[in-house]
Formats: sequence, C-alpha cells, structure tokens
Amino acid sequence: MATVAATPTEICVAAKEASRALARTPTSLRDAALEAIAEALETRLDDVLEANELDQDAAREAGLEPALLDRLALSPARVAEMAEGVRRIAALEDPVGEVVEGRRLLNGLDLRKVRVPLGVVAVVYEARPNVTIDCTALCLKSGNAIVLRGSSSATQSNAVLSALAAEAAVGAGLPSDVVTLVAGGGRGELEELATQAGVVDLIIPRGGEGLKAALTEVATVPVIYAASGNCHVLVDSTADLESARAIAVNAKVQRPGVCNAVETLLVHADVAAEFLPRALGDLADAGVELRVDDRSRVASGPAFAHPLGEAHESDWATEFLALVLAVKVVDSVEEAIDHINRYSSGHSEAIVTGSTSSARAFTDGVDAACVYVNASTRFTDGGEFGMGAEIGNSTQKLHARGPIGLRELCTTKYVVEGTGQVRP
Amino acid sequence: MATVAATPTEICVAAKEASRALARTPTSLRDAALEAIAEALETRLDDVLEANELDQDAAREAGLEPALLDRLALSPARVAEMAEGVRRIAALEDPVGEVVEGRRLLNGLDLRKVRVPLGVVAVVYEARPNVTIDCTALCLKSGNAIVLRGSSSATQSNAVLSALAAEAAVGAGLPSDVVTLVAGGGRGELEELATQAGVVDLIIPRGGEGLKAALTEVATVPVIYAASGNCHVLVDSTADLESARAIAVNAKVQRPGVCNAVETLLVHADVAAEFLPRALGDLADAGVELRVDDRSRVASGPAFAHPLGEAHESDWATEFLALVLAVKVVDSVEEAIDHINRYSSGHSEAIVTGSTSSARAFTDGVDAACVYVNASTRFTDGGEFGMGAEIGNSTQKLHARGPIGLRELCTTKYVVEGTGQVRP
Repeated sequence: MATVAATPTEICVAAKEASRALARTPTSLRDAALEAIAEALETRLDDVLEANELDQDAAREAGLEPALLDRLALSPARVAEMAEGVRRIAALEDPVGEVVEGRRLLNGLDLRKVRVPLGVVAVVYEARPNVTIDCTALCLKSGNAIVLRGSSSATQSNAVLSALAAEAAVGAGLPSDVVTLVAGGGRGELEELATQAGVVDLIIPRGGEGLKAALTEVATVPVIYAASGNCHVLVDSTADLESARAIAVNAKVQRPGVCNAVETLLVHADVAAEFLPRALGDLADAGVELRVDDRSRVASGPAFAHPLGEAHESDWATEFLALVLAVKVVDSVEEAIDHINRYSSGHSEAIVTGSTSSARAFTDGVDAACVYVNASTRFTDGGEFGMGAEIGNSTQKLHARGPIGLRELCTTKYVVEGTGQVRP
Repeated sequence: MATVAATPTEICVAAKEASRALARTPTSLRDAALEAIAEALETRLDDVLEANELDQDAAREAGLEPALLDRLALSPARVAEMAEGVRRIAALEDPVGEVVEGRRLLNGLDLRKVRVPLGVVAVVYEARPNVTIDCTALCLKSGNAIVLRGSSSATQSNAVLSALAAEAAVGAGLPSDVVTLVAGGGRGELEELATQAGVVDLIIPRGGEGLKAALTEVATVPVIYAASGNCHVLVDSTADLESARAIAVNAKVQRPGVCNAVETLLVHADVAAEFLPRALGDLADAGVELRVDDRSRVASGPAFAHPLGEAHESDWATEFLALVLAVKVVDSVEEAIDHINRYSSGHSEAIVTGSTSSARAFTDGVDAACVYVNASTRFTDGGEFGMGAEIGNSTQKLHARGPIGLRELCTTKYVVEGTGQVRP
C-alpha cells in the first residue's frame, strides 16, 4: 500500500488527510505502531534482504562506487540495528501535547501553548535504505505523516521497507497513508513534492550538496537543511594544556568525516610555543595533515619532526571532512571570536580556558548553534544532548538550531479556554 | 547617520558587524536606548511633524487616496503615542539570556539552551511612519540590529524618525549602525535586501499582498509573513446561546477589518432554529451583510426581517475584512472541524460549547495557530496574550505560530560547559 502508482500530489493530499487523524492518536497507539514496525523488520528480514540484493545487483551493473555500494548494502545485522533504533525512538518521551508555557490572563482566559505535530513531513534522501525506517519512526512518534522519496539506486529496498512500515502501522491501528513512498526518482517528482505548499508542512533533505541545491531552487514548502560544519577549537592562554591537547585531538581525529569535527585550531600566542610542538606532534602522529600560519610554524620550533603545510585564506573557510587541520595563532580571545564569526558555519565551536571571563566572552560572542567550554565539539548530537534520536543538525536560526529531534518535528498551537469572554 | 547614501549591501554588512556587539549589551543599556528614543521623539517633535508635512504635501500632489493619506499623517498625539509605545516595550522582560531548557548530562557536561538575538532583522513596510519606531524598539529590545526599508511616500518622515532613533541609541551607548534606513524605495533595493543570506537573518514584511508577493519571488533570506485570517465561530448543540450570540457578534463586529475577526459562523443543526433568528437579527442590526446556506435560511424562519444573501463556495474561502459574514448549518462538531480545516487560514478558530468532549475534539482537531473555547477570536494578539508588544501574527508552522513577540525575534544557542570531556 505504500507503493501504489499515485502522483506525488495525490500522495501528499492523502497524507494530509491522514495526518489530521494521526495528530489525535494517543501516545500508546503510536508507540505500538513503532513496535509493530520493529517486529515486521524481524519477521520479514528475508524479503528485505532479497529486495536489497536486487538493488545491489543493479548498482554493481551500473558501476556504482564501492563507498556508495556499501551505503546501499543491508545485512541481517544492519536490519537488526534498524529495528533496535525504532524501539529506542518508541521509548522516547512523546513531544505531542507538551505544554510549552501557559497562564491565566487578567480577563480569566486560560492560555496554553501546546506542542502539536507539524502535519506532513517529506524526507528526500539518497542511497542509505535505513533512512526509510529511521525517519518513519521519528515522524510517526512525533505524530506526523511521512512522505518518502528515496534514490533510484535503492528502489527495491525502499519499496519493501516502506510497505512493511505502512502495513505494520495500519495493522497497529494508525490511519492509512501515514507512510507513503513516492515512486520515481526524477527531478519532476522532486519538484512536484517541493511545491506542495499548504499540504506538505516541511521537507527535510538527507543527502549531499547537489540534492540541497536542487531543492533550494524549486521549493515553496519550508525546508530544514542538515548542516555542514566548519568548526573551531580555541586554546586560550589560561587553558589546561593537557586537556586542550586531548580536546583538539579528539575533535579532529575521533571521526573526521562528520560535521561536528574541528577544522581549524586557534591558539593564544602566550601558550603557542609551549602547546603547539606536542599537540601538533600528536595530531601528525594520528595522521593529520597540518596547514599552519607563519606564527604557528615558528612556535612549533625548528626541531618539529613532521611536515607543516602552509595555511591559505581558503583553508580558514574550508570544511575538510578529512584528516586535515588548519592552525593559527591569535593574540586574544576577541581576535579568535572575530575569526570564528567570519569563517565558521555556525555549527559547533569550543574554547579551552581556565578563565571565567574568557569563557563568558566566547559563549556570548560566538554566533553558533553550539558553543563549548572545555569540551570537544564532537558532542553536538541529539543523542549526546539527551534529546534521543535526531534527524540531523541545523545551523539555521529559525525554528530549529542544533540537533533536530522530536520536538523540532513539531509546531505549537495556542489553546485558549474561556467562559464567554468577548473583547471590549 | 541613518540615512547615509550607502547601498543596501553595505548597510546590511555594517548592521551585521554592529549586531555582534549589540547582542552582548546588558538589558539596562538597551532599555536606556529605548528611553532615549522616546525622549528624542518628544524633544524633536517639530522636526518630525515638519518632515511629515513634506510627505503629506507630496502625497496630496500625487493624488494619494484619503485612507493612505490618513495612514501617512502624524500629529502631536500620534507621536506621543509612539513614544509611549517605546516605553511600554522597554518595560517588557528581556528575552535575551532566558534559559529555555537545561540539564547536566551523564558525562558531566552542563547543557543550557539559551535565547539569543537573531542578529540583523530587516523590516519592509508601507505608508505608516510609526512602524519605523515600533519595529526599531522591538528589535533593539530583543538585541537585534534593524534595517528599515519604508515606502517612498514616507521618505522624509522615515528619514527623520530613523535618524533620531539611531542618534538616540548611539547617544545612550549602543554601537553605531544598529538602526539604519535603506534609501530608495525601488524594486532593486528590495531585491538586494532580500538576498542578503547569511547577513540579514530575517525579513518581516509589514504591508499588503503585493509586497508579500514581491518578496516571495526574490527572497533568499528567511521571511515571516504577517498572516491573513479566515476565522470561524462554531456554535455547538450544547452552547449557552446567549454567550454564543455575544461571541459571534463581538468576533464579527468589534473590528471587522482585522485578521482575527470571524468570517464564517457555523451552527449545529440541533440549535439552529433557536439560535439563528435572534443572532442573525443582532448581526444584521449591527450592519452585517449575511450570506447563508439553505439550512440557515430555513432555520432563520419565514418571519426573518432582514435580507439574507446566498452563500457560495467562494464565500467559505474568503476573508471579507468587512461587515460580511457567511453562515452555515452543520450536523456535528466533526463536520465543522472538517469544514474549518478545509477553508481556514489557520489563524484563530472558536467553539462555543457546554460539552467537554466537543471542546476537546475541537481543540485537538482544528489545525490553527489559536483555538478558542467559549471566547471570541478577537483575543489573538500579543498584548492580549500577555506577550507585550507584537510585530504581527504568524500562521506559519515553523519558528513562530501566533503572535510574533520579542521571543520570536530571537533564536537559541546551546551553551555546553565541561571539565575537559572528549567523546569516547
């Protein structure tokens, strides 16, 4: 039922209709639907793997790159992980119905601002078929109908996964059409989906810059983009240098290909000669390519044993997403803040300092979604923040800034209860 | 200093720079700046009126309509009102620095989600020069730099008002360039302003549908539109009919030209014959043109003394903004909810009922920014809601839904403080 050959418009209109009833379901019913989806992943494992084999065969024939092939491939372990993920989302607190604020007004009206589902969320994504299930679970948990539009390379996998999820959801008692897959991966379908203003309430792209650019061009529906991150670590003059070294290495090396990894290390001039030789040595030992300014080169000392590249203006602005780090000496926390506000993508920024005034200047002055004092930038994550699962990270300032969790998949509604009040 | 002949791009870049410092100012400094603006309106009253006379002369020569001329005109009383409005905004609670949520994570990190200014807010507005001061006060109070772009008909008034505000703000100790007026009212300037993505953080249009359409076409900066309102009052079978009559009349008649006035009255079939003759009589006596469906006509009785027009499909979808009301009989609360979700603009919707289950069905089922039980829709307003001043009402679901007050002119930032934590 998730793969009927309806047009994107028909699918979205049906999803809107379904979302009205879904928004009024109790938490227990939505949680039961998620459990049913998790169970269906287990009982229908063979169907899922069989469909995925077909996709993999086609992808190999089409000469898909090994990295993309790996992202496409499902295994019993990966499907079990998906089921586990659905159960973790079911266990989270329901965001729907939370009273954000409320008061009795002077005229006796009782006002509450209540969290409610957005309605219909469309997710546009690339190769990974697990996104089908992850996003479905997040949307159903938050009371939203979901319209999925995957890539053509995962057609068979996505069809089976979305059908399985839709059947399980309806079997558990949710309305039909709360989970639907748009057939056809062409630009025409994307544009039709992205222009359903008033029907689709939000589009979330999960994919590369090409997908984002294609969406930006045509979308009339609100879009929240998962963000890129050009992140910084600043080592202040009062920093505990052992701790600073551990944080710099962790932020760069622990997982360099993600958006909350550090790309530029800033070091206060007062501690550069003491800090840099050992810290850069550790980073180089971990395989990091270093691109440094002149003062960092001098501070590293003549005996520095590793190659030091030259940092250019473009390096300050680059999200390497790899084992590459730009390094710069600054004369003050203020200079560092100015550098960060100029080049940062506003994702995650850290200072290592022993000074309360430096910490305050940094957290007040840096314009970013997440600002850290004495901790690695790598903690920016819905799970780490105690929000449960996340659908991505936002560097936008409106609606959602930072991890996009269940609450961010909701809007609010003012409910105002009176006893016959009229406006004088 | 607010009217230097800089390009919109130069103005926005300077405003961005200024916004960094502004965001770090204490509440007391921003409040002092607002008080200085209020005082400057009083001491420079003659300059303001003189400039406004020039605008009025030009407008009369150009043959501007009387209604627009009235909106353009300032008087000592209107300027005193503006000063009073600025002082009321100064007296409101500072939204900046409010901790929205916070917790200590398992790994010892202290996480706070803190309200911070957006940065640069651009306001694009039509004839009324008081918007220059109102919006400046709201933006400065919430820590945002403001870029103003008024209409050419108010050029002289806006130039004096924005210069006066900018000088008073700087005199009180705020950075330069936190208040600037874009000279030139052409489409080119609007487009240049609306495409400052990454510099301007939000654009708020204050004007008619033409302005909104012009912005939608070109904007790459986020826009929040003040909303139109196709609002409904539902009289349920269990309603107190006296109260229902008072609410229906108030919602239609008290100020018909605003977005929270009612446009369609829905009446449960069980009480239509009892309710409609008197309620529609009261409405007709108040000068309301009635457009009714067949069942309402029958329920009004053969002796109904006023003309009853015929309601067409298009009437259900129309925001009359005038003394016109569409009327329809429904068989159930569910039917009314379906009608509202089909035709409503999602602004303000009311039920009059004695039944808790009808009230719950309505508040859960109606998809709107504000949902009322036993009260007039006319209360949707930042002031009435206890939020202080408002810059408009939003029917969008992202970021701001309902009155747009000081909090909605802010974003949030996660501040995370640790003791050297790295991600394992």
